[in-house]
Amino acid sequence: MPCEVQRVMFVPVPIGHVHSPYNDTTSIPKGLGARHDAEGALEIIPEFELGLTDIEGFSHLFVLWVFDRSRDFDLIGTPPCDNRPHGVFATRSPRRPNPIGLTVVELLRREGRLLHVRGVDMLDGTPILDIKPYLSGIPTDSLRRGWLTEAEAAQQMTP
Amino acid sequence: MPCEVQRVMFVPVPIGHVHSPYNDTTSIPKGLGARHDAEGALEIIPEFELGLTDIEGFSHLFVLWVFDRSRDFDLIGTPPCDNRPHGVFATRSPRRPNPIGLTVVELLRREGRLLHVRGVDMLDGTPILDIKPYLSGIPTDSLRRGWLTEAEAAQQMTP
Repeated sequence: MPCEVQRVMFVPVPIGHVHSPYNDTTSIPKGLGARHDAEGALEIIPEFELGLTDIEGFSHLFVLWVFDRSRDFDLIGTPPCDNRPHGVFATRSPRRPNPIGLTVVELLRREGRLLHVRGVDMLDGTPILDIKPYLSGIPTDSLRRGWLTEAEAAQQMTP
Repeated sequence: MPCEVQRVMFVPVPIGHVHSPYNDTTSIPKGLGARHDAEGALEIIPEFELGLTDIEGFSHLFVLWVFDRSRDFDLIGTPPCDNRPHGVFATRSPRRPNPIGLTVVELLRREGRLLHVRGVDMLDGTPILDIKPYLSGIPTDSLRRGWLTEAEAAQQMTP
């Protein structure tokens, strides 16, 4: 097939890139209890800067980005925080049919087309696809967290 | 240019489609106080069904999907719930540089490769890009909701 454009639903374009302290995946905190409080920045490319208008008013943002150093996908995989395999759609594995990552970050301040944020878990240079305001959460008491709850319980029993 | 593949970061593929009661955008509740408790289903295509393994344990899911009936984008636009324009990245407008939508749904039950869910706000037939477990929320008291809070206050003052 000379060109895959026919099956393309849209052509993803980077709206910017992530500045992160992480240069390789092994340095990103993973697994149970991993805290993502690393500070970084979202640098939006000049042609999209106008789209940031009024973003300063939001404390938290959804960032959609590309696992650009991930190739191919696995429908079943064992995450770092469990010893049992799970379906890719029940995990945050980078090896997904569409290699899109999703992170909630706290917006610390805006400096032109740089958004200084806390909570980055992406590699430095990661392409950003979209930013959306984070508007609300699901109350904790109505949230079930699947296999993760069991994995946490198992880990707590291990000294 | 015969083929746009060179600037493609990845080629989006649908992993399934949304079954929704909404057939046109005007029927989707929008604006302030809009409740999204419509029930629908996420139908995953057979080749990806294995990726749903263990998803039953999660009460809420992130669904990433394509605004497939939206063309082009606006960096600034006036959302239905305000009379002031805002940057696209501070809104949920369908007219985005990458036309990706994000919805949190409640998983009611799984039936093979059908996920019955509550909270759909997509059109019937919308292509799904990804499903991820929803793991936690930002505590309400540390959340700021930008221009939306002001728009809500203005609306409450209008009889």
